[in-house]
Formats: sequence, structure tokens, C-alpha cells
Amino acid sequence: MPTIAFLGTGLMGAPMAVHLLKAGHKVLCFNRTKAKTQAVVEAGGIACDSPSEAAREADIIITMVTDGPDVEQVLFGINGALGSAPPGTFVIDMSTISPALTRDMALRAQERGFRYLDAPVTGGQIGAQNATLSIMVGGEQSLFEEARLILETMSAKITYCGPIGSGQSVKLCNQICGAMNLLGVCEALTLGRKMGIDPNAIVEVISAGAGSSWAMQNLAPKINAGDFTPGFMIDTQQKDMRLVAQAAEETQTALPGAMLATQLWRSAQAHGCGEEGIQAMAKVLFQMAELSSTSPSEATSEPKTP
Amino acid sequence: MPTIAFLGTGLMGAPMAVHLLKAGHKVLCFNRTKAKTQAVVEAGGIACDSPSEAAREADIIITMVTDGPDVEQVLFGINGALGSAPPGTFVIDMSTISPALTRDMALRAQERGFRYLDAPVTGGQIGAQNATLSIMVGGEQSLFEEARLILETMSAKITYCGPIGSGQSVKLCNQICGAMNLLGVCEALTLGRKMGIDPNAIVEVISAGAGSSWAMQNLAPKINAGDFTPGFMIDTQQKDMRLVAQAAEETQTALPGAMLATQLWRSAQAHGCGEEGIQAMAKVLFQMAELSSTSPSEATSEPKTP
Repeated sequence: MPTIAFLGTGLMGAPMAVHLLKAGHKVLCFNRTKAKTQAVVEAGGIACDSPSEAAREADIIITMVTDGPDVEQVLFGINGALGSAPPGTFVIDMSTISPALTRDMALRAQERGFRYLDAPVTGGQIGAQNATLSIMVGGEQSLFEEARLILETMSAKITYCGPIGSGQSVKLCNQICGAMNLLGVCEALTLGRKMGIDPNAIVEVISAGAGSSWAMQNLAPKINAGDFTPGFMIDTQQKDMRLVAQAAEETQTALPGAMLATQLWRSAQAHGCGEEGIQAMAKVLFQMAELSSTSPSEATSEPKTP
Repeated sequence: MPTIAFLGTGLMGAPMAVHLLKAGHKVLCFNRTKAKTQAVVEAGGIACDSPSEAAREADIIITMVTDGPDVEQVLFGINGALGSAPPGTFVIDMSTISPALTRDMALRAQERGFRYLDAPVTGGQIGAQNATLSIMVGGEQSLFEEARLILETMSAKITYCGPIGSGQSVKLCNQICGAMNLLGVCEALTLGRKMGIDPNAIVEVISAGAGSSWAMQNLAPKINAGDFTPGFMIDTQQKDMRLVAQAAEETQTALPGAMLATQLWRSAQAHGCGEEGIQAMAKVLFQMAELSSTSPSEATSEPKTP
């Protein structure tokens, strides 16, 4: 069974690495903040002090870090994984980064004899924990077929999207939808409260009809419960939306909705919510509408009928 | 079994009336354009020349028309249903209209001895055809319990939302979500095509993850197939978004996303797409990005990699 170097054991990476351990893989992991390897170590993983140390005997290197420069650092930097990994080692980058940087790094890795796929994920922390992530893969199709078995350990659905970088391109499209859906949820909950409607009724009804979304089903109940802990952090979403904006600029694509959403979440950052979950956007809209509270008990008693 | 006067047999109303017939009800129907009663007549319904004629022996009057003034017309106007209906007749308005006008008409109907509920629906034409609509009900809870059996004939989910008008209030929140979700879908498909990605891969991936929505699952495949026939017409959506804007103004609620979406669909109207389905918004965004075609074969061959 292939030995895996898992680089980046944060909100998403840690539960993904645990699924690989449960499937019987040997997993050596690295995280900049070592404390975040704890869940992986408790599940039988080995925490290493550098990407280089983790990759020394790896058959597969999986990267799950925040941004492009982080991937570059753990692969190509000082004590980077590619300095120690055996030639032929498989590199699967599951982070969300720029399609252009992906193509560049894949080329550099291939020149040194490594095999490379981009395989970003969607499904949130919930998906990572339940191994129900959807994975979108870019790269040579034969490599995709080889990697499928490993990816299946962490996911419910794997889709081949095209040549290297295509997984990242599809991921950017996904981030547009995630942002727009959640902005709709936040505006609906705001207007509903202002009209004196029980916010739980809104979630119940809309989840069952043509206005439904993953965001309504999974994040709206958290908003109603006043739970803004991160499954997906606003700071990370802002990084993703910057990648969307770059891709839109490169391709001369006008994205009025996505860019408005980006600006509104930037306001959430300004409110000090950067390390909260993206559902904390609701707090910005509630404040814009002079709704003072977000807890469900207050939500049902406070608003006035128009 | 109660006799039903069904007023308004359009895209949504006709399949709903057919379900009532199939359940064994006698259904007398009326539609301004009589040709649109055909499907109901073929299923055993009786087409009438006026709401008054349809309501003469009704136990329940169901209205499923376009806007508030239409409901007012078929109930209170010349040859309106309430002129002939027996006292005590149940009026269930399933149209999407203003919560304020709903409260007003309910009061007037109650003063004349009628029982009144607002019960707008979501789920689209697909939901109407498959009896999987989600119905949101406002009015006295005891009346809601009485009406439940009839509503179940047309729906998969019925939610009591509060006093009269509350169904309409929740419906407006739903329309915000429907618009935002679909705008996200259209922007994602536009950026994806500009990046050279197979649009079907985008639908497949995003439908399975945290960016998923009813719009992605049901309308994006239509966009990729170049099918802009209406399940929900843009002209009707613009009427709904006007109601959203009114409610937002009455309650002093800022809805930046919903209002941007409204403006963009207004552009689709200007493009001559008012009687097409709301998914025709994609054509506006494609044109903004200088993508000339919407059919899937061209979509996969035309775009360039950035």
C-alpha cells in the first residue's frame, strides 16, 4: 500500500489524512503549525519537522495548504518535499490555487521526474470529515486513473476535468457558486427577519424547493444558531475570490455577482470576522439592516412585522 | 370529496389542477386564455367562461395567477369567484403576490364569510408536474390543518409559516435565493467556458459539492443544452423581484445581491428574453464575455485556454 506524505493538516487536510490512515496507508504528515497535526498523529500518523522529512520514503505526496506560494514552498522550497522524494513520486496538489501557477509547477516537477495532478476539492469541512468530498482533477488522464483509488478514500465523487490546471479552473467556478448561494441565503434570512418570519421556517421551506442550495441546507442553520465557527474561513475565501478575479481578468470575463460578493465579504473581514466561517457574512447584512442579534431566540422575538 | 374551482391554469397551475383531478376531485377551471385549460380538460376538468361560473358550486377556490391585481380580479372583480361562491368557501391563493395585498384581500374575504390562506409554492414547473412542490402557508393554523390534505395532493412538503401573508413573505425570501443561485451558475458557466473547460464537467462537479444548488442541478444542464424554454419566465421573475424590492423598502432592508440580480435579469428582458426561462440570463453573461454561442458542442470547441 502506497506510503503518503501529507503536507498541510488544517481544517480540511487533517480529516482527509485520517481517512487515508483508516484505509491502511502509512501517513507521514507536516504542518507549519505542528499542533495541527495532532488529530492525524492520534489516528496513527507520523508528524515530521519538514516536508523533506515527510517525503523521504513517500510514494505519493499530497499537498493541502492555503495558497499557491505555500504549495511552492512545501514542494520546491528549502527542506521542500521534492528535495528528498524518490524520482517518480506522485504529487497530488489538493489545495485551491491559481490554474496558471499549477501549470508552471507541474512542468517544473515533471522536468525533475515527478508525476503531477491538480485535484482541488469541494464539500467543506463536513465533506472532509465524512469522506464525501467532490474532487476535480486536472492532468494526464492515465495519471488520473492511477490516482483514482487513493482519491476515492477521501471522496464521494471524482471528476476528470481536463489537462493540468483544469481541476483548479473548475474549483474557481465552484467558488463563485458557493459565494453567490451563501449571499442569497444571508439576504433571505435578513429580509425574513425584518418581515417577522421565523428564520427556521425559511430554512425549512427554501431547502425543499427551487431556491435550495448546499449553503441553505448546511450554513443557514448555523447562522440561525449563531454559530460562526469556520468550516471554511473568510480569509481563505477571500484568497479564492482573488484567484477568481485573476482568472476573470486573464480571460476578460465580467462577473458582476461574484465581484459584488467578494466586496461584501471583504466588509466581513473589516468587521474582524476573517477567521470566522464564511456564514459570518450574515452578521454584516444583519448590521446593515439594523438587526442587532443573530441568535435564534432573539431572531424570532425581535423583528417587527412591516 | 371537495369540489375545486381552479383559477389560473398556466405553466404551474395546469399540472397542479391535473393532480387534483387524479386524486378524484371535481375541478372546474378558468383561465384568461382559454386554450391554456386544455391539459386540465383532457384530464377530466371542466373549463368555465368566468371565475364566477367556476366557483358556483366550489368548496375550495384555488388561485394560481400571475400577480396581485390578477388575484384581486378573479376573486373580487366583475364575474369574480367570490360573487358566486357559497359562504364559507375556502380560498387558497397559491400565486406569488405581495404580503401586504394578501393581508388586505384576506380581510375583505373574511368579512364576507370566506376562509382564506396564502399558500405560494416553490419547485418550478418540474415540481408542479411531479407533485413535488414545496408549499409555504400563511393564515390561521386551524385553517392550515383543514387545508393540508388538499395541498398534499400537489406537494412533497408543506410548511406553516405564520399569520396571513407569511407564506408570501417566505416566498419572497425564496425568490432571492433562486435568483442568486442561478446568477452564480451563469457566472460559473461563463468563466468556465472562457477558461476552456467542458461545461458539463462544471455541472457534474459543482452539483456534488458545497457550491451546489437546485439551479445548478436543474437549470445549468438546460443552459448547456441551449434550452431556454420557460419553467419559470423572466417576466414573471421580474414581477417577483419587484415584490422583493417593495418588501425590502417597507422594512428598510439592504439587499445588494438581490438588487444586482434584478438589474441583470432586466437586461435579459431588454435582450427580448422576457418570455424565456430565467436560465436565459446565461445568454446575457455569455454576450458580456463575447462568447457567441450557447450550444454545448460549440461551447466545448470554441473557447480558448487563457
